[in-house]
Amino acid sequence: MKELLIVKVGGNVIDNEEALKLFLKKFNALKSPKILVHGGGKLATQLSGKLGIEAKMVDGKRITDVATLEIVVMVYSGINKSIAAQLNALGTSSIGLCGADMNLIPAKKRELGNIDYGFVGDVLVDKIPAEKWTMLLDKNICPVVAPITSDASGQLLNTNADTIAASIAQALSAHYSVKLIYCFEKDGVLQNPADDSSVIEHIEPTGYVNLKEKGIISKGMIPKLDNAWNALNSGVDKVIIGNALHIESLTEPEHSTGTLLSL
Amino acid sequence: MKELLIVKVGGNVIDNEEALKLFLKKFNALKSPKILVHGGGKLATQLSGKLGIEAKMVDGKRITDVATLEIVVMVYSGINKSIAAQLNALGTSSIGLCGADMNLIPAKKRELGNIDYGFVGDVLVDKIPAEKWTMLLDKNICPVVAPITSDASGQLLNTNADTIAASIAQALSAHYSVKLIYCFEKDGVLQNPADDSSVIEHIEPTGYVNLKEKGIISKGMIPKLDNAWNALNSGVDKVIIGNALHIESLTEPEHSTGTLLSL
Repeated sequence: MKELLIVKVGGNVIDNEEALKLFLKKFNALKSPKILVHGGGKLATQLSGKLGIEAKMVDGKRITDVATLEIVVMVYSGINKSIAAQLNALGTSSIGLCGADMNLIPAKKRELGNIDYGFVGDVLVDKIPAEKWTMLLDKNICPVVAPITSDASGQLLNTNADTIAASIAQALSAHYSVKLIYCFEKDGVLQNPADDSSVIEHIEPTGYVNLKEKGIISKGMIPKLDNAWNALNSGVDKVIIGNALHIESLTEPEHSTGTLLSL
Repeated sequence: MKELLIVKVGGNVIDNEEALKLFLKKFNALKSPKILVHGGGKLATQLSGKLGIEAKMVDGKRITDVATLEIVVMVYSGINKSIAAQLNALGTSSIGLCGADMNLIPAKKRELGNIDYGFVGDVLVDKIPAEKWTMLLDKNICPVVAPITSDASGQLLNTNADTIAASIAQALSAHYSVKLIYCFEKDGVLQNPADDSSVIEHIEPTGYVNLKEKGIISKGMIPKLDNAWNALNSGVDKVIIGNALHIESLTEPEHSTGTLLSL
């Protein structure tokens, strides 16, 4: 099967104009087919602050009320168009999308549990229309995906970008040999968060349980890795976590940096 | 040739949630192929106000400095995604785009004249890639277009929505019999602005000069009509100006409302 790169680039890279520019230059140089999923960074929180809307977070997750949803949609869609424009200028034919476009990522509003997360979407992975994605990829178009989805009624929903990347990867794994790359400002999953050089080269499920028990893997890294295992269990070929500014090395068959996850 | 509807819906309809919903329901019922171009409405000005950024207008045109551009891109892209989501829920397979996506509407920053308009784009009509538009339309996808373009360097630019609609119409007139419809909250071009029933049914170029001299056509209507004549001179089949909430009647061969422009 043909290889497909699905790259999710995290918030801190988005927040830094120079880092983003450098990342996009390197992403542009990667061979197609490829999909770029981006996070939102701190801009939504900053804009909420300026407008006097308090950003409510529980367990690192944003609570999305109506006012916050409006801001999140605007900010993420704006970043999305800026990234698409930059990639087009570099030579990658790109299209700025979110899950609502052509119902590319069907979702539903998260059901009420102990916490009401508000307008937050859970992806309906089984309903992702693979043929619409392949239609774009076959035309050599690179989808740039903002972390927004919608439900069947057309209600926009704030959706985790890691989950979106993993969900697309799962849905396309029957059509491509998918390499899913989570990249951010660190060199990989670290043994010691204070030591940037302590990258764990390889994690398997049993090792993962161990690392969680020891508290080495915690907080935001847990949902990221849980997404990764889901993806691998659903036929995704490889998941690699590493530095956005080493993206060219992370995508190589024998990548010399980053953390490789495998079953 | 196959018919293509290009509908531009104006700001006042966008600003009114109920009117927008009703308009989209009627737009959804129109037969394909079709393209929807939307304006920005007052939301950008409102958000600028809340953020303490003064909206600078000269001759009814927004001066787009860096801060204003950021807001305009966010607001228009956010509206764009909301419209696409609503249309998809209604059944029209829609994709939220701007001119930057796939370089669908190449533009350049307006050159300095007496007024520096800032980050405002002038469309390079001859460079619009018709084959990229037909590729989407052939797949029964309805492009929903926000009034943002980019230049060759990837710089996003604020661009007049009427001009964008006319430019796409011109570029696609070799491939389709294009009907360009400008719709807004009025029933057409009015003989007397205070009398909503005084719709002028038909305007030809000589009549247009006459109406301008008498001051019956003035202000924002002049660039709209100039765009229309350009479109007609470049092979667009028909231009109709009328009420967004009568869109179904405006698109009929023997439309009973609105103002028809012809050469």
